[in-house]
Amino acid sequence: MSAAPVIAPTTGLDALLDDARAEAPHIEVLRPSAETAAFAFDAGTAPRRVSDGDGPAVAFPATPAEVQQLVRLAARHGVSIVPRGAGTGLSGGATASADQLVVSTARLDRIVEVAPADEVAVVEPGVLNAALNERLAPLGLFYAPDPASWRISTIGGNIATNAGGLRCAKYGVTRESVLALDVVLADGSLVSVGHRSIKGVTGLDLVSLFVGSEGVLGIVVGATVRIRPLPVARRTLSAFFASTAAGADAIGAITASRVRPSVIEFLDQPTLEGIDAAQGSGLRDRGAALLLIELDGFGIDEQTAELSAALTAAGAHVRVESDADAEALWELRRSGRRFDDDQWFAGGDVAVPKSRIAEIFAGFPAIADRHGVSVSAVAHAGDGNLHPVISLRIPPGADPALPPSAVHDAADDVVRAALAVGGTVSGEHGIGTVKRDLAAVELDVRVREAQLALKNALDPSGLFNPGKAL
Amino acid sequence: MSAAPVIAPTTGLDALLDDARAEAPHIEVLRPSAETAAFAFDAGTAPRRVSDGDGPAVAFPATPAEVQQLVRLAARHGVSIVPRGAGTGLSGGATASADQLVVSTARLDRIVEVAPADEVAVVEPGVLNAALNERLAPLGLFYAPDPASWRISTIGGNIATNAGGLRCAKYGVTRESVLALDVVLADGSLVSVGHRSIKGVTGLDLVSLFVGSEGVLGIVVGATVRIRPLPVARRTLSAFFASTAAGADAIGAITASRVRPSVIEFLDQPTLEGIDAAQGSGLRDRGAALLLIELDGFGIDEQTAELSAALTAAGAHVRVESDADAEALWELRRSGRRFDDDQWFAGGDVAVPKSRIAEIFAGFPAIADRHGVSVSAVAHAGDGNLHPVISLRIPPGADPALPPSAVHDAADDVVRAALAVGGTVSGEHGIGTVKRDLAAVELDVRVREAQLALKNALDPSGLFNPGKAL
Repeated sequence: MSAAPVIAPTTGLDALLDDARAEAPHIEVLRPSAETAAFAFDAGTAPRRVSDGDGPAVAFPATPAEVQQLVRLAARHGVSIVPRGAGTGLSGGATASADQLVVSTARLDRIVEVAPADEVAVVEPGVLNAALNERLAPLGLFYAPDPASWRISTIGGNIATNAGGLRCAKYGVTRESVLALDVVLADGSLVSVGHRSIKGVTGLDLVSLFVGSEGVLGIVVGATVRIRPLPVARRTLSAFFASTAAGADAIGAITASRVRPSVIEFLDQPTLEGIDAAQGSGLRDRGAALLLIELDGFGIDEQTAELSAALTAAGAHVRVESDADAEALWELRRSGRRFDDDQWFAGGDVAVPKSRIAEIFAGFPAIADRHGVSVSAVAHAGDGNLHPVISLRIPPGADPALPPSAVHDAADDVVRAALAVGGTVSGEHGIGTVKRDLAAVELDVRVREAQLALKNALDPSGLFNPGKAL
Repeated sequence: MSAAPVIAPTTGLDALLDDARAEAPHIEVLRPSAETAAFAFDAGTAPRRVSDGDGPAVAFPATPAEVQQLVRLAARHGVSIVPRGAGTGLSGGATASADQLVVSTARLDRIVEVAPADEVAVVEPGVLNAALNERLAPLGLFYAPDPASWRISTIGGNIATNAGGLRCAKYGVTRESVLALDVVLADGSLVSVGHRSIKGVTGLDLVSLFVGSEGVLGIVVGATVRIRPLPVARRTLSAFFASTAAGADAIGAITASRVRPSVIEFLDQPTLEGIDAAQGSGLRDRGAALLLIELDGFGIDEQTAELSAALTAAGAHVRVESDADAEALWELRRSGRRFDDDQWFAGGDVAVPKSRIAEIFAGFPAIADRHGVSVSAVAHAGDGNLHPVISLRIPPGADPALPPSAVHDAADDVVRAALAVGGTVSGEHGIGTVKRDLAAVELDVRVREAQLALKNALDPSGLFNPGKAL
């Protein structure tokens, strides 16, 4: 069982890589190099900040057994593992340093089974969200969680971050669509948790604990997820308002109705102006703020009537969009404003109780004035999740890589405003490395201790993704 | 801070009770006595088995702070705590012995807040499920989880067991309706976990871990739960079939449609005959098996048309029931067969992948023949959860308290059949004490070790509900 003799390894990672080559030559592994530098970053890391330095080692196991082998090798050599899907995260949860081993799920990309009669699909973690939905659509089915990255992110990454998306208020976040998981634990064992049946209660719920755990407890190598029939109808309504405040207030009118849209996106005035500036779309001519709504399911006419009446009473100019116009509007929502190299910017991902959304938007002008920046947001209004954007034009001669503190101070003020109304520092992006300080502000120390105790119970040597999430 | 001098306590519980009287005289506490014998049992324990012996000590704290006091007292004296709601559980999760302290949530029964604009209610754990729904109904709102015990069970108990119910396939189990919890941990600290916002990801998900944990991790003293608008319409369809097999097969026809009923209850031939025998209801005249379906929401006519067509094609005689007839049918479903003192019986709570429900029913006659008993079931067909019933008439002179092994052997065979098709030993009742052996059959030893490691991480001295669930 011992490794072939190697020339004195200088680090645990070197020794691990030598053993891997000797014992598991079938596993594709990249050594730390400039080639792997991208694995030091994720989609939340500005590309301009990618250095010329070496990235981590990266392994591409093709089977659960290969993942087990890698975990045992890492444990043997005291090298920590960073599980990684497509790297589309925004909070640094899947970023790695040069002394770490990234375990990529890129080659664990099989859709194992689609079982409409059980309303489940069984997938490996590297399956793209879009690939699963492409497979399901011809069957009249869909997988509900729809993070903005759905075309390029993996089901495994979605599970690791408990990814949200646009349709969560109606269909739930990723956790509500995961029934069972196969997971490789820190000792290299492979366990199956959860149930293929839709109900099941057998002791502590390990499935829910692994969902959203950002790779700190183990590596998901298989998932049984819920799938649903495509709705019999979908319809897009636009509701334009004379002001950001009027639009934000109207969210309450939707809540007070009996209609639960599949999507409710709120775009404020600076956002509409930013989209117009970037794309010449003319949205601002139709109003100062927009609630872009998707209805789905049975009784679409009844739903449209009740919701249109509620929104009109709230001051909206409501229109049922044609399919073509609807597609154009959703594309504008997705592609949105462009933040070019001539601007510094900072993003965000707070969530607040639904009734407080309007209050958060009302506070933006004061924050913007205080720090001399622009503050705006798009909100998933159905579930209280806001993505604020702080931006500032870069003056001539300034270093684009060095935004003034005002940009991040303004972003922090938005987070503080959310916490002040009972909100949270992360609605759907997770904590990763980027939000650990903010999480420490939100969470009671005893809660953080409890989270760490759970982490230590399953991964006592700290093998998985140290320094993330907790 | 030290206790008043007491006469030599003979047990930890005696000492605890003396300290409680001295330090927390405001907390109502019953000493172990015949009066507390009921707390040794739950709704799954046949009343005839209640002994004359002493029950546990029982405390009725009225505030979270009083719960903290009790937990600290118990920790000081090494006395274990059994948290208990209304005691309507069926798996022994809330039963206690004479050396334990039951912490009842009966006096923690305040509905703290109903916030329609946030789509949440904030309750103490002792609030009855029915009481919350009575408060919500005039506002046009409801709390979705609906275990059969909903009129008499508590939200806290529902949370402890992750209670299911009839509407789970559409609205989810209890876990999907719980956003945040206040919990007293083993060191007496009170922590708040989760978010009032509908989305939120801040490290390991303690809320989901506490839901369904059967009181082994702490005591829930407050909960923020999701509430929803009452559907604009509800309608009951009956679909009678010529045989149990035909009815069970038709479940697949519902799945294949685009309609997702709020309730799909399947009653097999012996169940219909049992109801008729007990209540003279004449169901059997209408068919041999029944799918009793509730539709809700918008487009109720469209839903009715699509589902009726699918069921008729599957061989059903379908009828839209009048409100009065519907209420009578649901009452028959709820009150069901009567199992009088002249029968031995055993119940069950398996869940299987939806496509395998028909297979489980098809296996009942062979199990019945093998053991010389009757086997039937009612199924929550929308989520694969079956409640089998094994019964046997007690011959003259036999001891009603001593059923022959055939009864339990047949029940075990049903569980084995469920496991053989990828099912689970508990769909919604939980493990408690009753199903620990069965859970050991279903769960890999490594999974059970992981569950125990999590338990030990949060409750290292085993204060909470030892011997349950894990």
